[in-house]
Amino acid sequence: MPNMKYSKDFTDKNLSKFGDSLVNFIFSLALSEYLGYPSAGRVPNSSLALALERAKLSHLIPPRTDKHGKGDIAEAVIAYAWLEGKITVEEAAEIIKKNLSQDVLHFTRKKEVIGIAFGELLKVVKERLNL
Amino acid sequence: MPNMKYSKDFTDKNLSKFGDSLVNFIFSLALSEYLGYPSAGRVPNSSLALALERAKLSHLIPPRTDKHGKGDIAEAVIAYAWLEGKITVEEAAEIIKKNLSQDVLHFTRKKEVIGIAFGELLKVVKERLNL
Repeated sequence: MPNMKYSKDFTDKNLSKFGDSLVNFIFSLALSEYLGYPSAGRVPNSSLALALERAKLSHLIPPRTDKHGKGDIAEAVIAYAWLEGKITVEEAAEIIKKNLSQDVLHFTRKKEVIGIAFGELLKVVKERLNL
Repeated sequence: MPNMKYSKDFTDKNLSKFGDSLVNFIFSLALSEYLGYPSAGRVPNSSLALALERAKLSHLIPPRTDKHGKGDIAEAVIAYAWLEGKITVEEAAEIIKKNLSQDVLHFTRKKEVIGIAFGELLKVVKERLNL
């Protein structure tokens, strides 16, 4: 287990910062496995906002939170689950990969595809963390 | 092992792209453990160029490669080692963490500290990959 202090506070900006780095690595690994060769990509905030909605985690979002803030909440949730040992990078990437479609390569449609895939990851995390 | 095709070509841009995401996650984990709370940071190309030099890996750099290109080579080497199962994220972060100093928080001095720490990681990778 990583050796650092954190709490179950999904509005914690430090947890979100670390989560941003984790989420982008998970997505890059998933995308690489989906394409069949090494690649990388960033996960848009709008995708993470959609993912929270699809996983029915809207109760974690404080009132008047914008898209960027929703992205931060999702990143903090995924970081917390990983730090707690509830999910590995490899398992998370496998869930994302299985839920990707060719639209991930489409300029505008990719945001929705990524959101749907991260929604599936958040459903698993939700259950394991009893959220 | 991740399921994708790649070869031992450290000038491969796809390997570098994936490596960029991996390297930033390794550094974010190391920085978080060093500070004692979740955090994140990006690894400058100049640090990766210094790391290659310190690990005596300059023979991997094609002639007339600029700083950005050197960063790409280092990212590709680390990505290749991880994909080959020669190093884990956790072990790599542990090596980085052990070699950090308070200068990692200093606006200008951090580039050198990060370079020195990644140099230690590259020394381990160099040995395991027989580079």
